[in-house]
Amino acid sequence: MNCEILAVGTELLLGNTVNTDAADLSGLLSGLGVNVFWHTVVGDNPARLKEAVAIARKRADLIVTTGGLGPTYDDLTKNVLAEAFGKKLELHQDEADFLKAWFARNSHSKYTDNNLQQAYLPEGCTVFHNDWGTAPGCAFAAEGVHVIMLPGPPRECIPMFKACAAPYIRSLSDQVIFSRQIRVFGMGESAIESLFRSEMERMANPSLATYAKFGEVMLRATAKADTEAEAEAMCRPVVEKVRAVLGDKVYGVDVPSMEALCLDIMTERGLTLSAAESLTGGLIGERFTALPGASAVFRGGAVTYCDEVKAALLGIDPALIAAKGAVSREVAAAMARDVRKAVGADVGLSATGLAGPDGDGVNPVGTVFVGLADRDSVWVRALSLGTGRARVRQSAANHAFDMLRRYLQRLPIETW
Amino acid sequence: MNCEILAVGTELLLGNTVNTDAADLSGLLSGLGVNVFWHTVVGDNPARLKEAVAIARKRADLIVTTGGLGPTYDDLTKNVLAEAFGKKLELHQDEADFLKAWFARNSHSKYTDNNLQQAYLPEGCTVFHNDWGTAPGCAFAAEGVHVIMLPGPPRECIPMFKACAAPYIRSLSDQVIFSRQIRVFGMGESAIESLFRSEMERMANPSLATYAKFGEVMLRATAKADTEAEAEAMCRPVVEKVRAVLGDKVYGVDVPSMEALCLDIMTERGLTLSAAESLTGGLIGERFTALPGASAVFRGGAVTYCDEVKAALLGIDPALIAAKGAVSREVAAAMARDVRKAVGADVGLSATGLAGPDGDGVNPVGTVFVGLADRDSVWVRALSLGTGRARVRQSAANHAFDMLRRYLQRLPIETW
Repeated sequence: MNCEILAVGTELLLGNTVNTDAADLSGLLSGLGVNVFWHTVVGDNPARLKEAVAIARKRADLIVTTGGLGPTYDDLTKNVLAEAFGKKLELHQDEADFLKAWFARNSHSKYTDNNLQQAYLPEGCTVFHNDWGTAPGCAFAAEGVHVIMLPGPPRECIPMFKACAAPYIRSLSDQVIFSRQIRVFGMGESAIESLFRSEMERMANPSLATYAKFGEVMLRATAKADTEAEAEAMCRPVVEKVRAVLGDKVYGVDVPSMEALCLDIMTERGLTLSAAESLTGGLIGERFTALPGASAVFRGGAVTYCDEVKAALLGIDPALIAAKGAVSREVAAAMARDVRKAVGADVGLSATGLAGPDGDGVNPVGTVFVGLADRDSVWVRALSLGTGRARVRQSAANHAFDMLRRYLQRLPIETW
Repeated sequence: MNCEILAVGTELLLGNTVNTDAADLSGLLSGLGVNVFWHTVVGDNPARLKEAVAIARKRADLIVTTGGLGPTYDDLTKNVLAEAFGKKLELHQDEADFLKAWFARNSHSKYTDNNLQQAYLPEGCTVFHNDWGTAPGCAFAAEGVHVIMLPGPPRECIPMFKACAAPYIRSLSDQVIFSRQIRVFGMGESAIESLFRSEMERMANPSLATYAKFGEVMLRATAKADTEAEAEAMCRPVVEKVRAVLGDKVYGVDVPSMEALCLDIMTERGLTLSAAESLTGGLIGERFTALPGASAVFRGGAVTYCDEVKAALLGIDPALIAAKGAVSREVAAAMARDVRKAVGADVGLSATGLAGPDGDGVNPVGTVFVGLADRDSVWVRALSLGTGRARVRQSAANHAFDMLRRYLQRLPIETW
């Protein structure tokens, strides 16, 4: 099945918004055995969208649109697609009721007649209810082409694809695609690729591919077979081979992230967590508490962005900071130890360093110390994370979670 | 001038790489008065690239390609484009000499005959020398179409566009485009649009358009004229009209975000900030400290994810929490007041509430209290932010920054 992803939105053509949906959907679609051969972006312009649909239906078996499902007059994806395939738009009462209830609950947004437009969908379509926003998506088949329409905002588009579009696509084929995601932290994509190049080039079914994402690497083993059990069995030796070669750099298979893995293990063992953050400014806590159920594990912590606050909130000795510097192994250790005590948690994480763009005159930008403390011990990683403020901060948080999962999996922690 | 950006690279279709070039080039091109009407991505496949070029040349006056200029066998952009426009590839001796010298200097890269491929460019083209990598770009005009070819890596593509392609494009046109971004918080996109629908539909030059982004709305006024001063003058009444209608819901014009505006004002006035976060788990601190220069203003704060930590780190009376509940106006007020004192800042922000998916048995999911305290006073907004854990958390942080900018702009704060 050959697919075109067609994004609709003038904001993409003006450069206001990066089309991350296209990349994320491409990864998800290739995991379902779909060949994505084209990405197209057009603006909120009916004539140009119509032309783009005419081109897409000639070359693709599956058209996935993103965007243009909202309530405003330039949201026209449904209208143009329905017309192109000779379908009428019908009011879906369930969606209309949902919209009214949603606006009644959300006092700051006012319900207008425009909003009802969102409840009109092509006749005979499969409705994708939007649990992450208000505009529903949908899917239909017509004239040998499958059309899937998803909302544009990534927070709605990606969950809706996983919950609604993926099962729809799976139902179209008699063959089952099965894939395993092997998640790796601590090694670059090209180094990993050179270790598995022969497998990656030789293998078609099962196949192996690498994806670099947010400072870590994901390997995907995919197999196609008549039954899920068969496809799963085909993936197994590939996963085992990767695990054998990469060892404990593999932090999990089919887990969403390092922090999600940590949350699961800590919930199961009844352990609690705390964090003291300098350069990350709250990012470690933010990423952990983004996970539903985090409140069973995460007790809290301190954002100690300036030195005095390290003393005021955590009781860190100002003399230690004066002697060693705020960006030091010793202060990272003290932060992890003291935040654990201050909030009464089993484990404390810490991060101190220089995210840039300015250095401190002593250490270069990218100098970071990440700490982990339990009741008995403290571990610190000394890192040089390069430049780029956002990248340095995310990378520091990645290391904190890598140390935590190694601690929880009883592996060596100071591996850097 | 109507433009298509045509990216070439299988990595984009597999989801390994996000097409940030398309967004960045779009912003730069619209700043030059070029209408970017299409983005297309195809893989390293000569047949599909040839088809994509055939489509692009029919609808666009300017085709900007990215990627596929490297030395490997699947780098075929120049070959396909040159052939499509009936041009031969010629060896450019200057580029060949540069390549040889580059490889002599960079001992870790080995020069092979493949590398010389990069020095072959379409006959009669304008060569864009690559100061940021090895593959040169180029531009040519043929059969009424302008073609610009740029390398794919953003570190090469964007600087080469600015240094080489932008002057080339400017030399083709005699008009200038100017735009202003009006940023609004506290009103939905469709409500705003219904207020300005007649302007939006009537106006072509200057034009007005709305974009919803991360829980806020941006309006863009754009004008095209012979000089920048003239275009700027055409935008002015549009901006004034929007300001007059939306009042203090407009938080700024041509500012990047609420938190960036707050950082600027607080830096200028020498004010410092702190935050006590429950449901946001560090997000307010994280967003503020993502800004370079935040350390001059943000002193730190506490992530008080469980009740005991509110007492342990901030000294909040457990009896108050027991009497009013952790999710209450009173606790939000105490958190803002006490974090300000604990870290010695001029202003304290706070957020407490239920992000979901689970409620607390008393308040519905989405119940949020956001607080702001200075030395003399404290303000609290009581909010119902609906459902969706990530959305509720981002929205709570948005409200914290809206309260802060209203405080700094001396406007009413408890507007909810």
